[in-house]
Amino acid sequence: MQNYRPPIEDIAFVLTDLAHLSGVCALPGHEDITPELVATILEQAGKFASEVLAPLNHVGDVEGSHLVDGIVSTPTGWQNAYREFSQNGWTGLLFDSQYGGQGLPRLVGVAVQELWDASNMAFSLCPMLTQTAAEVICLQGTAEQKKIYLEPLVSGKWTGTMNLTEPQAGSDLSGIRTQAVRTPEGHYKLSGQKIFITYGDHDLAENIVHLVLARTPDAPSGVKGISLFIVPKFIPDSDGNPGKRNDVRTVSLEHKLGIRASPTAVLSYGDESGAIGHLLGEEHRGLEYMFIMMNMARHAVGIEAYAIADRAYQRALDYSMERVQGYSVGSKNTQKVPIRNHPDVSRMLVEMECQIQAMRALSLYTASAQDFVSRHPDDAKRADSQVIVDVLTPIVKGWSSEVANDIASQGIQVMGGMGFIEETGMAQYFRDARITTIYEGTTGIQAADLVRRKLISDRGAMIQKVIELIRRDIEDSNAKNAPEVLSINMGTMNGLELLQDSTAWLLDSERKDPRLPFAASFNYLMLWGIVAGGWQMMRASSIALKYIEEKHNTSFYSHKVLTSKYYAGFILPKTAGYYSAIVNGSELLMDAK
Amino acid sequence: MQNYRPPIEDIAFVLTDLAHLSGVCALPGHEDITPELVATILEQAGKFASEVLAPLNHVGDVEGSHLVDGIVSTPTGWQNAYREFSQNGWTGLLFDSQYGGQGLPRLVGVAVQELWDASNMAFSLCPMLTQTAAEVICLQGTAEQKKIYLEPLVSGKWTGTMNLTEPQAGSDLSGIRTQAVRTPEGHYKLSGQKIFITYGDHDLAENIVHLVLARTPDAPSGVKGISLFIVPKFIPDSDGNPGKRNDVRTVSLEHKLGIRASPTAVLSYGDESGAIGHLLGEEHRGLEYMFIMMNMARHAVGIEAYAIADRAYQRALDYSMERVQGYSVGSKNTQKVPIRNHPDVSRMLVEMECQIQAMRALSLYTASAQDFVSRHPDDAKRADSQVIVDVLTPIVKGWSSEVANDIASQGIQVMGGMGFIEETGMAQYFRDARITTIYEGTTGIQAADLVRRKLISDRGAMIQKVIELIRRDIEDSNAKNAPEVLSINMGTMNGLELLQDSTAWLLDSERKDPRLPFAASFNYLMLWGIVAGGWQMMRASSIALKYIEEKHNTSFYSHKVLTSKYYAGFILPKTAGYYSAIVNGSELLMDAK
Repeated sequence: MQNYRPPIEDIAFVLTDLAHLSGVCALPGHEDITPELVATILEQAGKFASEVLAPLNHVGDVEGSHLVDGIVSTPTGWQNAYREFSQNGWTGLLFDSQYGGQGLPRLVGVAVQELWDASNMAFSLCPMLTQTAAEVICLQGTAEQKKIYLEPLVSGKWTGTMNLTEPQAGSDLSGIRTQAVRTPEGHYKLSGQKIFITYGDHDLAENIVHLVLARTPDAPSGVKGISLFIVPKFIPDSDGNPGKRNDVRTVSLEHKLGIRASPTAVLSYGDESGAIGHLLGEEHRGLEYMFIMMNMARHAVGIEAYAIADRAYQRALDYSMERVQGYSVGSKNTQKVPIRNHPDVSRMLVEMECQIQAMRALSLYTASAQDFVSRHPDDAKRADSQVIVDVLTPIVKGWSSEVANDIASQGIQVMGGMGFIEETGMAQYFRDARITTIYEGTTGIQAADLVRRKLISDRGAMIQKVIELIRRDIEDSNAKNAPEVLSINMGTMNGLELLQDSTAWLLDSERKDPRLPFAASFNYLMLWGIVAGGWQMMRASSIALKYIEEKHNTSFYSHKVLTSKYYAGFILPKTAGYYSAIVNGSELLMDAK
Repeated sequence: MQNYRPPIEDIAFVLTDLAHLSGVCALPGHEDITPELVATILEQAGKFASEVLAPLNHVGDVEGSHLVDGIVSTPTGWQNAYREFSQNGWTGLLFDSQYGGQGLPRLVGVAVQELWDASNMAFSLCPMLTQTAAEVICLQGTAEQKKIYLEPLVSGKWTGTMNLTEPQAGSDLSGIRTQAVRTPEGHYKLSGQKIFITYGDHDLAENIVHLVLARTPDAPSGVKGISLFIVPKFIPDSDGNPGKRNDVRTVSLEHKLGIRASPTAVLSYGDESGAIGHLLGEEHRGLEYMFIMMNMARHAVGIEAYAIADRAYQRALDYSMERVQGYSVGSKNTQKVPIRNHPDVSRMLVEMECQIQAMRALSLYTASAQDFVSRHPDDAKRADSQVIVDVLTPIVKGWSSEVANDIASQGIQVMGGMGFIEETGMAQYFRDARITTIYEGTTGIQAADLVRRKLISDRGAMIQKVIELIRRDIEDSNAKNAPEVLSINMGTMNGLELLQDSTAWLLDSERKDPRLPFAASFNYLMLWGIVAGGWQMMRASSIALKYIEEKHNTSFYSHKVLTSKYYAGFILPKTAGYYSAIVNGSELLMDAK
């Protein structure tokens, strides 16, 4: 009933033709990675996702995780699945072989992550957070910290968490109160309460490594006084095995709208003598380090968004081909037809499909830029790639998550009454998707990041670079291609002009009232997302046409040309509304009370 | 925590100034109804809604209704609430005094219905369906049927249901298979399975009157062979008291995404010797009678939509004023501020508020047209009002329900992580709202109704009448008002032009391919909704300006002018996207497979 078909063909196309896989494989340190190896990895991951993780998704939702007598237990079958997942090496995909990892590029990691998220989003959060925690330790840890923590995190024997939020400090981390007091032995004793800790406690692994934001007693107030600490659930002994239980207690698990199998914990540090923690990097630079995790996690949420959207799309498509209701409009045929044949059901399905493709392409494109930033030998290429990563990350997170909510809702709509019944599984996708616009920074926070750090901070220089990149791609495509694709080219160009105008409007408006760009920020982010998605669909259709001319796999490529037309016909027209809301609406919010 | 504040002031404004309350009160048979009486009723209903129903909403969601050993039990406190509700006379508001009702206009019924829906949507479904069932019996029942069934339905002693759907017959009722065989005694024996029966079984009342669509053995195939039957759960004895249990069995209750307290039953008729039913009206005219219920029920779902949206809005607004995070952008003040001060939170709140006002106004405007249709002495006025009802009903249902889903989702977004936690209540509003685009005909079905029965059937004559009505209202307002309101006037006029062009496009396109109008139907419905909402907000602000000039209650009216500007700034710009999708997208769906 809830089969998941890994979209390997589309992922492979995007990797190869839109996201520079060959360029990434040519980077120093990735010389051993070949496209063939990547194809094998994708195939294996797809098999694990569809055969092991997907069947556990619904049971996880129904059972949930539970805290009983201080012990958190995950749903039936999850322990086995996690053991197999880590034994297969999936937890260490991106890490260096010296820590037991497989040293693959981030691009491949992002491609694979989609498969975990789509098959079982609640499950995938655990390895995703472990990976981000390991990344921070890898970049900022001392040699000893790396020695103790990295190997078990990379192997999946231990898992990791991010501890940011406190009851009074959510979007605004400057309010963090958790205390960390240095001891004569050189470590720290932490005390305070953290909430919304994903996989903050569970029974999947023998130890949990919490990365915790806290304040030292002499720290300056605000975000500049926050430091980052490693706080293990069990303190490793001299052999690196989990030893004495640390002073961190699981107070409760949240009852959530979605991702119910994923235990979201309230953790209390230092109820007794203080939880033992180790400073990561330097004091007072915690937020900066946390942003390493955060940017990875933001991109990861963008992946979740199109992954869950694709799962909903697949289910809706299947249902639409099975469910027979009504007659074909205007046909003399008196046979009832599958609802797929009704134009309005078709509309929903094509809107879902073309946006999923656009989101996937934009995300993988951003991932390859991350690899270039990390490893490209050329300074200019690294700098250019950094601009792409900086500008596109909040868009991949913010826009994709907003769209994913719409798509999951359309999934229910295609199924009608059956979509509202929990047993069909669609309701779970809808509920699970709902978190994506919230965690790792709400859409409003992504939009503020885009406007504050990526636009205003350099008076539009970074943004303008990406606009020019898109403009050149459109011009290249215009010069090369048949009129067949022009709707996507024209639509993207129209959207780009609106983006250009909005950018100027935001920069101007800031001089009038510094609040104005933030009144426009959500609409600006959404406008960016739609245009950036159009850009990728334009690139895709342009390349697809070339393959069709060369008579390659024409059914896949013809369909790609079609989905780009859907994007032009149904999605790009929304840019006008966002643009108008920016230039005509934003000012109204200055007086709203 | 989950207080509900009945929006009496806005409802009273809409009734008086936009929805012709005085005209309705002047209709034959309504001479005793005064605006003062209506005000008292609203106040009393608001009190009951906020004090009795609202506190049961969350417990209803958590407990749900359950089927145990053949008995359906509703959540704690619901029996008492229902008893009080019916004893207070709320079930009989719209019915003639000869049946124990209070004979109020539909306009007042719609105003009051919002309060039940907002305070406790799952509860309110029971009296709403009872009311629609009673209405059909009132219009089509024999004298004896009225005698037996009407008084207990009007008093709420018994409740009513609609039995349409079967596993193979949902949106397409032509597939109905339930059989009704005439007996020598002149009644019918029914057998078959019905699904998705709201309040199909429960413990709130001593009897349940099912209105069941079924087929007689000699009936023609398709929808023309469907008849409507009264099938009581307990067969009334000669004194009209519930007697022998009828042959209808509750097979199961659904596990649903939302409205969990409302028992949605699978009912099996005739497992033993056949369920005894009585023909309502004539054979083979069942669908026609069911549409009496359906049109009322569709309007009722439109009411649910803005009601639940308003509940979500109130909760979000409260939270935004309590929750302190971050600093005011550009301010030198180092005090943290409530999130209400952040422009992007403000954007969400004003979008929510202005659309709720627009939906409410459109719904009540439509309700007064229903009263004119029923009672106006002038033929032309009745005919004009019928056009308004016919055109606006699918818009009130389809557009409002789509918007309500967005608003409930924004409600979660305003609350961030707290919105995703079930205990805060916002998640329930989000889940409850999700049914509104589905039952009583999905949005696709509403859109098809608009296009098939209200547009193509008379080549646009009805639609054109409503467009002209809106145009005249805009011109009147333009002639009267200060430039202050021009943004809503201009935006509505621009939208109206797009609507005019789309209407022409749909009519033309039908000649090319009869599927084309149905490919455009959803976007056409949404375009209609936004413009019709703008029309009402324009009327509202125009009147508000007049009151401001006359120095009446300026804070309410100034705010109304503001919300009309929000509607112009943030909502009306979306028309461009819908228009473009109609004229540039629809054709793409002809080849979609």
